Amino acid sequence: MRERTEILEETFRKLTEEKKYASLRDLMQTLYPADIAAILSDMPEKLMPAIFRLLPKDLAAETFVEMESDVKEALIRSFSDTELKAVIDEMYMDDAVDLIEEMPANMVRRILAQADADTRKQINEILKYKDDSAGSVMTTEFVALTPRMTAEDAIEEIRKTGVDKETINTCYVLDEKYHLLGTVTIRTLILARPNETCESLMTGNAVSVNTQDDQETAVQTMSKYNFTSLPVVDAENRMVGIITVDDALDIMEEEASEDIAKMAAITPSDKPYLRTGVLDIWKNRIPWLLLLMVSGTFTGIVISRFENALAMVTVLTAYIPMMMDTGGNSGSQASVTIIRGLSLNELEFSDIFRVMWKEFRVSVLCGAALSLVNFGKLMLIDRRFINPDLTVPIAATICLAMFCTVVIAKLVGCTLPMLAKKAKLDPAVMASPFITTIVDVLSLLVLFGLATAILHVG
Amino acid sequence: MRERTEILEETFRKLTEEKKYASLRDLMQTLYPADIAAILSDMPEKLMPAIFRLLPKDLAAETFVEMESDVKEALIRSFSDTELKAVIDEMYMDDAVDLIEEMPANMVRRILAQADADTRKQINEILKYKDDSAGSVMTTEFVALTPRMTAEDAIEEIRKTGVDKETINTCYVLDEKYHLLGTVTIRTLILARPNETCESLMTGNAVSVNTQDDQETAVQTMSKYNFTSLPVVDAENRMVGIITVDDALDIMEEEASEDIAKMAAITPSDKPYLRTGVLDIWKNRIPWLLLLMVSGTFTGIVISRFENALAMVTVLTAYIPMMMDTGGNSGSQASVTIIRGLSLNELEFSDIFRVMWKEFRVSVLCGAALSLVNFGKLMLIDRRFINPDLTVPIAATICLAMFCTVVIAKLVGCTLPMLAKKAKLDPAVMASPFITTIVDVLSLLVLFGLATAILHVG
Repeated sequence: MRERTEILEETFRKLTEEKKYASLRDLMQTLYPADIAAILSDMPEKLMPAIFRLLPKDLAAETFVEMESDVKEALIRSFSDTELKAVIDEMYMDDAVDLIEEMPANMVRRILAQADADTRKQINEILKYKDDSAGSVMTTEFVALTPRMTAEDAIEEIRKTGVDKETINTCYVLDEKYHLLGTVTIRTLILARPNETCESLMTGNAVSVNTQDDQETAVQTMSKYNFTSLPVVDAENRMVGIITVDDALDIMEEEASEDIAKMAAITPSDKPYLRTGVLDIWKNRIPWLLLLMVSGTFTGIVISRFENALAMVTVLTAYIPMMMDTGGNSGSQASVTIIRGLSLNELEFSDIFRVMWKEFRVSVLCGAALSLVNFGKLMLIDRRFINPDLTVPIAATICLAMFCTVVIAKLVGCTLPMLAKKAKLDPAVMASPFITTIVDVLSLLVLFGLATAILHVG
Repeated sequence: MRERTEILEETFRKLTEEKKYASLRDLMQTLYPADIAAILSDMPEKLMPAIFRLLPKDLAAETFVEMESDVKEALIRSFSDTELKAVIDEMYMDDAVDLIEEMPANMVRRILAQADADTRKQINEILKYKDDSAGSVMTTEFVALTPRMTAEDAIEEIRKTGVDKETINTCYVLDEKYHLLGTVTIRTLILARPNETCESLMTGNAVSVNTQDDQETAVQTMSKYNFTSLPVVDAENRMVGIITVDDALDIMEEEASEDIAKMAAITPSDKPYLRTGVLDIWKNRIPWLLLLMVSGTFTGIVISRFENALAMVTVLTAYIPMMMDTGGNSGSQASVTIIRGLSLNELEFSDIFRVMWKEFRVSVLCGAALSLVNFGKLMLIDRRFINPDLTVPIAATICLAMFCTVVIAKLVGCTLPMLAKKAKLDPAVMASPFITTIVDVLSLLVLFGLATAILHVG
């Protein structure tokens, strides 16, 4: 793809240098908004607004939407009020709301001043919805039909109003109180006999989400039903908007990135890495590192308590890191699997006992394999080449502790995310770093407990 | 959503008990395939095929596609050859290929025997493409138009052939050698004047992917251009299929799940957790645990080497786990961020020096904050309540080691995934567990090095 953009950029540069603006305009009209946005963003800031002005109104708005927020800001600064108004009038409601959300306050005032009264009202309505709710990402431009319309009427209606709608692929059949009765696709309308009514053509029992529902629920509903747009209804069950599938792809990507960040103990950010400043990256990471470091105090306390035991069997010290890492890895395997299952709605809190029973059996198998291999390695390799002090009871202590650690780690790892979900906390935060910190303490206690029992130390 | 399904299930149960099959059939025709599939899957196995047979042909195929593979298998066993043929004839090519891939060999023979010669040929073509390539997930049913057709002709063509196409929302304008000239949406065709030609209406410079491209690239291209279907071309640049956006959502979810699994040192599986057996889960996890445990040997070797130093300053032992965990967490923050950036194509190997310079500055800030806080904690809390032996030089050694560990961890964490990408390995495997294992060894070496220099031990 980079290659494609480079060839286009070269052509743009040439046409601009030779001042062949008419050809440039013609070329741009054959391109996709995302391509034009990418090329304009790489242009010198002085030239860029001039070339942007060559675009016809609708393409200008679509291109504008595809730009990064710093480029948008530069463009708005260069716009006259009339130009700004033209772009805003052409934008879909969801894009207008996104723009308002990413611009600084003084810009927002200017933008809202240029929007007409009705648009301003709709923007303000959408801004009221909670972040990441279905209402906050919907757009209000959808095709509404009535049940009595024939296929022919419906296509005529789409011809009249479709140009301002974000999609016409699926149309919505509403009663006079805006309740959603069913959906009918453009394909059905085109393939139908002209005099069939929407009522007879539509799929009833329409699936919709509520404005207050989580955007993730909305995306999963779309994915389940293979929709290209999903109706959003308000508390009175009136249809107020749709979420389109291109936004669903963005939301899905964003939600996965957020989960991944949280699992690695990072506060999520929606900016690309290379565009995020060092201080911002630091701010997203340091609180978690501090919190986890301070929780690490407990391992210190346990080790200090058993200092004498360790002094008697110093060789144990050499195996503490390996045991703790294995525990951490076992726990995070379980926690990450469960967190993902919860995110995808494959798991619910009521599954907790099935999950624990499954993880228990997996952990026994894992623990057995690991301790057996480890026992072999300790006796055959470590005793010969690294630690001649290793006796069978010491090796047995280490391996038994390893077994218990793995079982504990997997049980803690699967339980905590489910409990977090139940407590309406974010399960993703209960991933490897936290599990590791907890499992560390438990595994040390097990190790010293077993050492006391088997090796009679302490 | 569960509630919705429960109400429908109740109605289904009633109608079935009362043998009101006509009403049941009418009800099903108003429902979405995904809903019917969910309800049928929960029915007793004896009843299910009988109710499935009530469905009209097209809805039957769509419902069948939405079922889990064990239910599909049960249904096929109950089908007569004619019934099987009917379902296969109605299925889209990509779904037929998926079915072939998930069924056992004896079923596959039966399915292929029922498919007509042309379908069988197309299925075999698609099966040849590499797993996870664009070719392997495409479907061959798209609307092809010619440049000279008018909008009216095009709509007429869609009326004639559209019923067998997976989508009509975007149509593809091809020359006589099947080269893709441009795309035109149904919306454009409907809103256009009837005598405008496809050539003048289409968006040229069409974006497409190659059959050999990765499915992830395909999804990101769709997301970038907001497409609802993406054309796939072969090596001779002839258009051979499309990928539809509903599959894109599934692919994106699957790819994110795979990355998350690999980051937690798990071999990815495409089955939902509760449907995966204990032994399969064990097989996906144990190789990584073993590998990481054995790599853990190096920490043991380092500690054994410096046993004397530890014996002289036993208090150091208590802080080893905390230091190692902080290093692991710092490293995985960096590695996970970079891995995600690579997955989303926001980062490339050529960015490596920018990334390292950024991570270096972030790590200095994180390291400084962590060691300062830690120093305060050691002096004010630990010395008083936990370890009275803590002197200022010992605390300084621990904190300096912590600082170095954080810097090393972040640099290792950001570099390894990029090197993996360059070496055409999967960057996601270079996540926390591996980084932790490497950073553990390095941080112990730093700690003992500093202890030797500052505390003159060893």
